[in-house]
Amino acid sequence: MTTHASTVPAYAAPAAGAPLERTTIARRAVGEHDVLIDIKYTGICHSDIHQARNGWGEGIFPMVPGHEIAGIVTEVGPGVTKFAVGDRVGVGCLVDSCRECDNCKAGLEQYCTGGSVPTYNGLDKNGEPTYGGYSTHIVVDEAFTVRIPDGLSLDVAAPLLCAGITTYSPLRHWNAGPGKKVAVVGLGGLGHMGVKIAHALGAEVTVLSQTLGKKDDGLQLGADHYYATSDDATFEALAGTLDLIINTVSAPLPLDRYLGLLKTDGALVNVGAPEEPVSLNVFSLMGGRKSLAGSGIGGLPETQEMLDFCAEHGLGAEIEVIRADRINEAYERVLASDVRYRFVIDTSTI
Amino acid sequence: MTTHASTVPAYAAPAAGAPLERTTIARRAVGEHDVLIDIKYTGICHSDIHQARNGWGEGIFPMVPGHEIAGIVTEVGPGVTKFAVGDRVGVGCLVDSCRECDNCKAGLEQYCTGGSVPTYNGLDKNGEPTYGGYSTHIVVDEAFTVRIPDGLSLDVAAPLLCAGITTYSPLRHWNAGPGKKVAVVGLGGLGHMGVKIAHALGAEVTVLSQTLGKKDDGLQLGADHYYATSDDATFEALAGTLDLIINTVSAPLPLDRYLGLLKTDGALVNVGAPEEPVSLNVFSLMGGRKSLAGSGIGGLPETQEMLDFCAEHGLGAEIEVIRADRINEAYERVLASDVRYRFVIDTSTI
Repeated sequence: MTTHASTVPAYAAPAAGAPLERTTIARRAVGEHDVLIDIKYTGICHSDIHQARNGWGEGIFPMVPGHEIAGIVTEVGPGVTKFAVGDRVGVGCLVDSCRECDNCKAGLEQYCTGGSVPTYNGLDKNGEPTYGGYSTHIVVDEAFTVRIPDGLSLDVAAPLLCAGITTYSPLRHWNAGPGKKVAVVGLGGLGHMGVKIAHALGAEVTVLSQTLGKKDDGLQLGADHYYATSDDATFEALAGTLDLIINTVSAPLPLDRYLGLLKTDGALVNVGAPEEPVSLNVFSLMGGRKSLAGSGIGGLPETQEMLDFCAEHGLGAEIEVIRADRINEAYERVLASDVRYRFVIDTSTI
Repeated sequence: MTTHASTVPAYAAPAAGAPLERTTIARRAVGEHDVLIDIKYTGICHSDIHQARNGWGEGIFPMVPGHEIAGIVTEVGPGVTKFAVGDRVGVGCLVDSCRECDNCKAGLEQYCTGGSVPTYNGLDKNGEPTYGGYSTHIVVDEAFTVRIPDGLSLDVAAPLLCAGITTYSPLRHWNAGPGKKVAVVGLGGLGHMGVKIAHALGAEVTVLSQTLGKKDDGLQLGADHYYATSDDATFEALAGTLDLIINTVSAPLPLDRYLGLLKTDGALVNVGAPEEPVSLNVFSLMGGRKSLAGSGIGGLPETQEMLDFCAEHGLGAEIEVIRADRINEAYERVLASDVRYRFVIDTSTI
């Protein structure tokens, strides 16, 4: 058993906006309730790029991004009860929370009001910086570790830890299912999982994308309809027809137009957010008791539920596996929307 | 039986922004399913002023405002089954709808997608302008007429037809009740009814008003707490504590601050709307799965339910009854927030 901290290879941004480079970082000793995970694959989330370039401010550098982590348990602390060496596991956006607030008690750790700990670019309860999954190993409390079912390969499972749960959670909360018409705005990393999951939940799925460029893909992924938002006719054709819109795009949308697509009691749920404020006319909400809402990732119980659901329905992410030395190039391609639909780092190349 | 149209006294704005003056208008003959109502009282809603001054554009002039109507049935058409001569009745914001769309079939006539007919400043199905309650009589289809229970005086009941249902409907829809913390923003015509109804529903009620000027009133009306929004400390003290905020204020609010007052899964519901767009940061919604929503009046079944609820709980509006020749003065006082809390026209003075 590891009773001392270890030093492991990682890719880090040494400063805001600097290219990521190979380095080594310390991982804490495996504590009472910790598991040591041999990371196999880590997805590249758009927010990794955002934070590595300090888009939201207050970044902690050097920064090791990565919160879509899939691997194998290689060691467990003496108090661990859920996992054993050899288990296939995942870690998402959080590695700890206060565990005492109403949200934590309800399994909504993503909305912890006592202070949750992000997987990277945060400080743990000892005030130490957290480092993410662009690394070969990570030590995580078992309470923030989930099981990856056998039916899911680790590479396609990795992106589910953020892109999967971020779309699954609002789809479930807003009751996507048979008889419901659901649109997904944007067919990127989040959007493509939103389409797969909404379809598997039984909803009638529409993709709203800027152009029809990915239409074949969208239909292949499970969409029933595919519309270009650059075409004004889309907003006429779909007016008042949708129960739920999941917006995965971080650029500001003309919200009044999108709200006009909703039925009475419909909701437009944002899972991405632009840095600048958005604007809308309140009448767009009043005329049909509509909601503009937001949702962030998901809690631990729901993340496990999502993985089980994805395994049951054979849903993994569409991925392009890369070597670690291509991370910087991958970042540029993500920013250019040149990925179908998620880069996943083979961490054996770090 | 009146088989022909009648001419009745009314107060009308002859043109956009012009003072209201006494005139006469035509009321249609009492049709198969119509009731003729001897109007006793009509409330002055803020939106009357807005429309008489053409604030939302496209006003039809001359305009006879008034959609908070209470009176007595004096004649019924041969097909009328719900009402008899002598019944105490009310008419709210709508006098017809398509009756065929999903919303109409669900009793949500306020969200009719086939074209509803407002009580005034609209065109009926024959293309004739509708004239509201600033008048001695009105002819309305029984389907858009509700019963005012014996326990409610007609004068305090009149404002319930708009101010009452506009607050009752979202309070019910968003489950205000025991164990829920509800805030009402603005203690005016709508807000004071929101406080009364939320309290009667069993919620813990907070008033959020610009100043503490009406604090004694607010507590008297049923509020448990009263805070000034001009005081920054309010937003710290109440951060993350509310389940539901009903915003009755039409001026744009700093929405991010108000959203910060909500608990996880909380909703900020607008029942009034500024003419200009509002802005917010989407992160204010994502951090707690919050919603910014809108709600408009209520359907006919719910309006009857609201009146029955108010009668059962002894809830009427707080009113100042005025003669018709004081309407223009009352408008100025409403705009100056100098009314506690609703002007009601004694239509016998028209």
